[in-house]
Amino acid sequence: MAIVFENEEIMTAKSITAKYPGGEYPLYIGKGLIENQALLRQHIRSKQVMIVSNDPIAALYLKPVRDAFNDYQCDVMLLPDGEQHKTVEQVSKIWDALAEKQHHRDTTLIALGGGVVGDMTGFAAACYHRGVDFIQIPTTLLAQADASIGGKTAVDHPCGKNLIGAFHQPVAVIMDINTLSTLPDREFRAGISEIIKAALIKDKDFFQWLENHIEALLAQDPQIIIETLQRACQIKCDIVTADEKEQGMHSQRALCNLGHTFGHAIEQNLSYGDWLHGEAVALGIIMAADLSVTKGWLSEEERTRIKDIFTQIDMPKHLPSEIKCDTLLATMWSDKKVINNQSRLVLLKRIGQAVVTTDVTEKEISELLAHYSK
Amino acid sequence: MAIVFENEEIMTAKSITAKYPGGEYPLYIGKGLIENQALLRQHIRSKQVMIVSNDPIAALYLKPVRDAFNDYQCDVMLLPDGEQHKTVEQVSKIWDALAEKQHHRDTTLIALGGGVVGDMTGFAAACYHRGVDFIQIPTTLLAQADASIGGKTAVDHPCGKNLIGAFHQPVAVIMDINTLSTLPDREFRAGISEIIKAALIKDKDFFQWLENHIEALLAQDPQIIIETLQRACQIKCDIVTADEKEQGMHSQRALCNLGHTFGHAIEQNLSYGDWLHGEAVALGIIMAADLSVTKGWLSEEERTRIKDIFTQIDMPKHLPSEIKCDTLLATMWSDKKVINNQSRLVLLKRIGQAVVTTDVTEKEISELLAHYSK
Repeated sequence: MAIVFENEEIMTAKSITAKYPGGEYPLYIGKGLIENQALLRQHIRSKQVMIVSNDPIAALYLKPVRDAFNDYQCDVMLLPDGEQHKTVEQVSKIWDALAEKQHHRDTTLIALGGGVVGDMTGFAAACYHRGVDFIQIPTTLLAQADASIGGKTAVDHPCGKNLIGAFHQPVAVIMDINTLSTLPDREFRAGISEIIKAALIKDKDFFQWLENHIEALLAQDPQIIIETLQRACQIKCDIVTADEKEQGMHSQRALCNLGHTFGHAIEQNLSYGDWLHGEAVALGIIMAADLSVTKGWLSEEERTRIKDIFTQIDMPKHLPSEIKCDTLLATMWSDKKVINNQSRLVLLKRIGQAVVTTDVTEKEISELLAHYSK
Repeated sequence: MAIVFENEEIMTAKSITAKYPGGEYPLYIGKGLIENQALLRQHIRSKQVMIVSNDPIAALYLKPVRDAFNDYQCDVMLLPDGEQHKTVEQVSKIWDALAEKQHHRDTTLIALGGGVVGDMTGFAAACYHRGVDFIQIPTTLLAQADASIGGKTAVDHPCGKNLIGAFHQPVAVIMDINTLSTLPDREFRAGISEIIKAALIKDKDFFQWLENHIEALLAQDPQIIIETLQRACQIKCDIVTADEKEQGMHSQRALCNLGHTFGHAIEQNLSYGDWLHGEAVALGIIMAADLSVTKGWLSEEERTRIKDIFTQIDMPKHLPSEIKCDTLLATMWSDKKVINNQSRLVLLKRIGQAVVTTDVTEKEISELLAHYSK
C-alpha cells in the first residue's frame, strides 16, 4: 500500500511494519501526520468511524481527525480522563454508543490519546462484534514508544492493573510528534523510561545512543524524537513478531515487563495518577538492576550507567513513603506475571540483554524493598 | 495425549479433534464422562479451577465435577439462569470472583451448562489476563452439537444478541450424553434444529441419515445420540478449521448462520426465552429455504423434505403474532451480519450446500415475513 505523505512530512516521516502471526500493520512516525487526511482515511474499510478520546486531548486534536471524515458516519466518544476510569464500566459505555449508533462489524474505532485511551479503545474494538478494526493515534511519548504497539488492550480491576483485556492488533498506528509539544514535561520525561527499557532489554547500541542524545531528546529536537521513536518501536515490533501473546516461561514478550512487576505494585498501592507509569517503571528497572548485580549478572559499572540515565530524566529514586514494604510484596505476589505460584521477574544479564527468571527469593525482594524505602 | 476412558465409556465414547490456526483441542462424546475424574483433570494446567454454572444445572451435575478437584483450589460461580442475564454485568461478576480468589493466568474455567453458561464463561476466560484456559462441559443438546465448539463466546446487548464477545477456543469439550436425560423435551427437540442445520449446509448424506433416524433420536437412543453428535460436531469442526473467525464475504463459517438472521430477529423482539433459540432458527431455516426456492436454487421437493423434518420435531411454523413485520425487518438490518450496509443472508443451493448471498432485496424479505405472519 502506498503511503501518502505531504510537504514537510516527506522530509521526516518514517514508517515501520509491525508483523504478527495473523497479519501486519504500518506504524507512521512524523510531524503533522494527523493533518494528513489521505493517511487517516487510508485504513478505514467502511464509511463508519468512531473516534474515542478524552476532553483535554479532544480540545487540542479532535478537529483535524474529525475533519478527515466529514463525509463518513463519524461518531465521537469522550472518556473521562485518567487511569482511575480505565474500567469495564467505561468500556461498556463505548459498546453502548457503538450499538446505539448502529456501528457494523466493518466499522473502525480510532483511539486518539494516551495509553489509557488506547487500551480502552483497543479493548472495546477487540470485543465489539468479536473484533472490529481500530487505529491508534497515540498522543503521548509513552503511548507512541510502547503502549500503542503490540495489541495489548485492557482495563484495570480493583485487584490488578490490566487484569481484563484482550490481544487485538490495530490496523495502523499514526504517531504525530507535534502532539508531544502539548505534553506536560513530567509526562514527556516519564515516557522516556519505556524507551530506555526497550534499549536495556534488546539493544545496547541504542542505549549508548540514548546516553549520547538524552539532552537533545529532553529538548524535544524533532529529528531526535523521530529517530528515538523509530528505534524504540522497531524493538517493540521485533518482540511482538517473535511472541505476540507472551506465552511460556521463555517468552520474548515477557521481557517488556522489565521493571513492571515492581512498577505495577507501586502504582496499584498509590491512587492511580500519583506516580506516572513511566516513573514507577523507572524505579522498578533500577530495583531490577540491583537484583541483577546481586545475581552476579550485571556489572557495577552498567548499573551506574542505568541509574545515571534515569537521574538525567529526573525519575524517582525511592519508594513512596506512604507504602509499606509488606503491602508491596503482597501485591507483587498476586500480580499476573505469577505462573503456577512462582513469581517471575525480568532481570538484566547485561545492558541490552534481559532474561525472565523465577530464581529470586521472597527474602531478596523484601530486602530490596526495604533498601528503597525512605 | 492418551484418553482415559473407564468401563462402559470405552464401549461408546467417541473423540474428535477440533483444529484451528493456533492449535487444536479434543471433543469427547460419551456416556457418564463427567464422572471420569482422570478425563476432567487431564486438561487442567495448574492447581486452580473455577467451575461456572447455574442453579438448576449445579443441583444436578456440580458434585461429580467438583469432586474431581478435591485437592485443587476449586471455586464455584453460579450465574442466574436464562439468556436475559447473558450480560457484560454478569461476566464482570465472574472477573470479580476470579480476581478476588487470586486466580492466576494459568487457571482454568470450566463451563458446566447450556449455551448461555458456555458463552459467558468463554468470554470471561477470553478476557481474564487477556485469555486463560477454559473447558466446555455442555449439558444441552444445542450446546453439545453446536455452541460449545468453535470458540465463539459472547454476551448480549439490548441492541443485539452476541454483540460483545471474543473468539476464544476451549482446551477441551466434554459431552456427557447422560446430562440430556434431565433436559426438558422441548429443549431437546429445539437442539435438533442446529443439527439439521449442520447437515443442510454441508452434508446431504447426514441429512438423509437424520430423516431415517429422527424417531430413534427423539426417543433418545444413546448410540443414535452419540452418532448424531459425532457427525454434527465433525461438520462444525471442519468449518471452524477452514475459517476460525468468520472472515470475508465468502466465509465458510458464515454458513453456520443459516436461519440465524431471521432467528435472531425473532428472538430479539420477544422476551428472551419465549421461544427457544433452536425454535427461532428452525423457522429461520424454513424461511431461508423459501427464499432459496424463489431464487431457483432449492427444488420444491427438497423444501418439502426440510419442512417435514422440522414438523417431525415439532418446530414453529409461523412468526409469533406479537411481532410486527416492520420491526423484524428493522432488526435484521442492524444485525451484525450486515457488512458495508449490505444485508448478508445464508441460503441453500441444495440440501447439503449453503451459500452466503447479498442478492436479496428488502421487498423479498418483507413479503416473506408477511407470508409467515399469522
